[in-house]
Amino acid sequence: MKQINLNERKWNTRHLEKEKKLNDILKIFKGKIIPPDKIVDVMERAIYPGNIVTLEGDNQKQASFLSKSLLEVDSKKVNNLHMVISNLSRTEHLQIFKKGIASVLDFSYAGSQSVKVSNMIEDGTIKIGDIHTYLELYSRLFVDLIPDVTLVAAEKADKNGNLYTGPNTEETPVLVEAAAFHDGIVIAQVNEIDDYLPRVDIPGSWVDFIVKSNEPYDIDPLFTRDPAKINEVQILIAMMVIKGIYAKHHVISLNHGIGYNTAAIELLLPTYGESLGLKGKICTNWVLNPHPTLIPAIETGWVKSVYSFGGELGMEKYVASRSDIFFDGNDGNLRSNRIYAQMAGQYALDAFVGSTLQIDSHGNSSTVTAGRLSGFGGAPNMGSDSRGRRHSTAAWLDMITEKGETEKGRKLVIQTVETFKRGDNPVFVDKLDAVKVGKDSGLSVTPVMIYGDDVTHVVTEEGVAYLYKAQNINERKKALAAVAGVTDLGLEITGDEINDLRRKGIVAYPEDMGIKRTDAKRNLLAAKDIDDLVQWSQGLYEPPVKFRNW
Amino acid sequence: MKQINLNERKWNTRHLEKEKKLNDILKIFKGKIIPPDKIVDVMERAIYPGNIVTLEGDNQKQASFLSKSLLEVDSKKVNNLHMVISNLSRTEHLQIFKKGIASVLDFSYAGSQSVKVSNMIEDGTIKIGDIHTYLELYSRLFVDLIPDVTLVAAEKADKNGNLYTGPNTEETPVLVEAAAFHDGIVIAQVNEIDDYLPRVDIPGSWVDFIVKSNEPYDIDPLFTRDPAKINEVQILIAMMVIKGIYAKHHVISLNHGIGYNTAAIELLLPTYGESLGLKGKICTNWVLNPHPTLIPAIETGWVKSVYSFGGELGMEKYVASRSDIFFDGNDGNLRSNRIYAQMAGQYALDAFVGSTLQIDSHGNSSTVTAGRLSGFGGAPNMGSDSRGRRHSTAAWLDMITEKGETEKGRKLVIQTVETFKRGDNPVFVDKLDAVKVGKDSGLSVTPVMIYGDDVTHVVTEEGVAYLYKAQNINERKKALAAVAGVTDLGLEITGDEINDLRRKGIVAYPEDMGIKRTDAKRNLLAAKDIDDLVQWSQGLYEPPVKFRNW
Repeated sequence: MKQINLNERKWNTRHLEKEKKLNDILKIFKGKIIPPDKIVDVMERAIYPGNIVTLEGDNQKQASFLSKSLLEVDSKKVNNLHMVISNLSRTEHLQIFKKGIASVLDFSYAGSQSVKVSNMIEDGTIKIGDIHTYLELYSRLFVDLIPDVTLVAAEKADKNGNLYTGPNTEETPVLVEAAAFHDGIVIAQVNEIDDYLPRVDIPGSWVDFIVKSNEPYDIDPLFTRDPAKINEVQILIAMMVIKGIYAKHHVISLNHGIGYNTAAIELLLPTYGESLGLKGKICTNWVLNPHPTLIPAIETGWVKSVYSFGGELGMEKYVASRSDIFFDGNDGNLRSNRIYAQMAGQYALDAFVGSTLQIDSHGNSSTVTAGRLSGFGGAPNMGSDSRGRRHSTAAWLDMITEKGETEKGRKLVIQTVETFKRGDNPVFVDKLDAVKVGKDSGLSVTPVMIYGDDVTHVVTEEGVAYLYKAQNINERKKALAAVAGVTDLGLEITGDEINDLRRKGIVAYPEDMGIKRTDAKRNLLAAKDIDDLVQWSQGLYEPPVKFRNW
Repeated sequence: MKQINLNERKWNTRHLEKEKKLNDILKIFKGKIIPPDKIVDVMERAIYPGNIVTLEGDNQKQASFLSKSLLEVDSKKVNNLHMVISNLSRTEHLQIFKKGIASVLDFSYAGSQSVKVSNMIEDGTIKIGDIHTYLELYSRLFVDLIPDVTLVAAEKADKNGNLYTGPNTEETPVLVEAAAFHDGIVIAQVNEIDDYLPRVDIPGSWVDFIVKSNEPYDIDPLFTRDPAKINEVQILIAMMVIKGIYAKHHVISLNHGIGYNTAAIELLLPTYGESLGLKGKICTNWVLNPHPTLIPAIETGWVKSVYSFGGELGMEKYVASRSDIFFDGNDGNLRSNRIYAQMAGQYALDAFVGSTLQIDSHGNSSTVTAGRLSGFGGAPNMGSDSRGRRHSTAAWLDMITEKGETEKGRKLVIQTVETFKRGDNPVFVDKLDAVKVGKDSGLSVTPVMIYGDDVTHVVTEEGVAYLYKAQNINERKKALAAVAGVTDLGLEITGDEINDLRRKGIVAYPEDMGIKRTDAKRNLLAAKDIDDLVQWSQGLYEPPVKFRNW
């Protein structure tokens, strides 16, 4: 064996750095509870230049007190941070880059900040690490983005640092675990510090510091859709999805994206779905945040279980009163978990249903449009075929089109779109805007949300394209054209070609499915407005003020 | 809104059932600590006929006291259970089916029980739910296999039920979470009950009962490979992987399967890899159990981080002394987590390297051979292209072969095999045995471990087939034939065809890579035997007795 001097290297530098930070902080106060007015000082001692810092920014729950505090640190002391933020949604998330506190950014979704992010990447203020789906970003916390510091939000803590997240557990567990078990520092902002916790979501020994924030963490009701805004085109699309896809393929387990198309489906189950005799046969097991529009389906016995990424404002009491359906803790409140829900969304579901802003003739789609780098969120994770899946369900097997000894099934990935978006923008385009945005932002590959290869069905007001049946790229393009209406793509196909596709079952129009367009009326909706949802819930659903008109 | 009577239905039946079970158990004893002699009685009250029961069976750590106890229950009281066991490795796992205690089985991997499982499925003793990868099975715990009872193993508990898992955290957290947060009952066997825990891995409020087992949980050193058993063919293959794949594509982050081929790679990094000037340029970030054969690479500074699925017997002190590399808790011991490691293995890595028993001419491979339903484990999850991945690395981008605006990269999925297995069985076969086994077991699809479409490289003692470069199925078959030696497949290709593939860079033989076959000698191994590994570790590695010859 080769002899080398093995004694030179220190093997616990992360541990020593953490110890040094903790000793420095000990000079300001003792114990786990940071006096709120010391938070900036603590950050300046806990975060070293160049550190990798994860900052909780979920779809809804934001570590807003900590993000604001981070903006207050002296950039001479704390700078060039490598920020890992799943959901870029607050102005501070970008301002820390302007101030030089941070320089590199890895993220998943930008939402309302998508235009600013594009600009700041182009002008060099932000050096982009990469854009991820949620699961990818969390995965890298254990591989090559191991956090030095993590900043998270919870509802309550006790004096030992045990955390209670309430319904919005979200990504807190994974952010904490990655840091706590590799000598990172964990700081949690909480709305309250109390001797008694309703339940423990994160053990206190994983948390270095807690700080009571001066205002509750920021949270947004992102998954609430007002049934009053659902139009008849969306209802028609929903009817086709229920009859032409869910019933046809026996879709049992599924996820719905956010949007009026999927809200319409949820509200049609207890009416249109019931009339087709489908109750108990489809849509029983869900991975979904507590959508208010799912209440009528739950109340009428359609739903067996719902596992959630996070909570939804106003749904707390309703969820707590339906513990057979939702996951909850001993305290009776929802326990969500973003990483497990994404994983279940990827591996355990028959179908993912999403919507998009643009689809090209190959079926590739993207929500990235001119100047708007919105990122991915979770859609590509759930909206793709999980090639590592090996268990079968009826729907999954139904996607097999060729006979062969080693054929396997596929996940149903369904895109529901109207052929034109507001402002007469066609959804079907020759080239995705994402191509240019990707180039302008210096990304290595075009930010495609869902690749055409992965999409099994596209549904528009014209009909359903069963893309998984297309024999080749040209036939897939024709199938898309057949449902693309009067967009340029839609005008490329002849009536004969359409009829041929309909005969082959590659395309179905409403009449092929026994659906009358004239039946697509708002009276099919189990709830017509938010107030109806409240009534269905027997008053348990308490919609946020902005959704009330009473 | 439609008026219906909403008051008939109870919405908390799971909660009521759990309460009833707990009250029944309260008749035998009070508190969280089950007297060991009451465990069977407790199980008979905690488990109802037809319940879904998860039983911890990892690669290594087994809830062996609980599995033995389950075998003792009265099958008149407890029967027809639906068992969810990731790793079927103990005789009780099957005996409970013979006794009628259980009837349905969902699992991932069968290992040593693979022949018996096949037989019991064929004769109807076991009704198979399905066979999964680990991530799929865990995912379903939140969707359609929600556990009523979960039985897990930990090292220590305190009187409040807080659990300390030690290095083998494994799948315990996810099994507990799925049950604890949907009114399931959680029972943990522990080796010790103590007032003080080195750290908390699972909060006590998630655990209903603990029981001190009469002997420590069963555990196996599955990831230890003795360097003395590595032969020169494996060394040659390892050299080709390092130079022809890792260096060529800049592979930074990776997982290695279990086996001598990959052990050889690990032991060649500090010698052959060093001689090529590759240190710091490849193989820095790993998702891997603590393989003893990785010690020399760690000691010589090749490795930046290792995230683990579970621990490895004998590696405890070494891992604890290398906290910059491994994830650990405040107690200084490894914290592993099977579900996060699988997720990272799927989404955050450049490359997966596995081995297999059979490969067909399409590149499909399987470890299922005649009469042996071994299942999948984690390989298909890590050994497939993650179509939901959106971030780029050099290696991932290097798999792009076509120019196009929406092209994306791929994960490297590398199969290393010798053309013949022991007993002159060719690895390259016309048809996988898995086809027949799948039919005989009534599976819906053939149990293929890794599909040919997902494999990017196959390496044999003949050379490397760069399958990702093949333009079509026929060229892929030819590329496989070019490295298939004197198997029937290998004899199907002419010398001219081989030369053509070598010219195109679709196949490379050692001489094409500047590797001399005669250099593939055991003196290249950084450690020649287990004792060398102990020396490299400065005595910190303490191999289990069966690996010692001193």
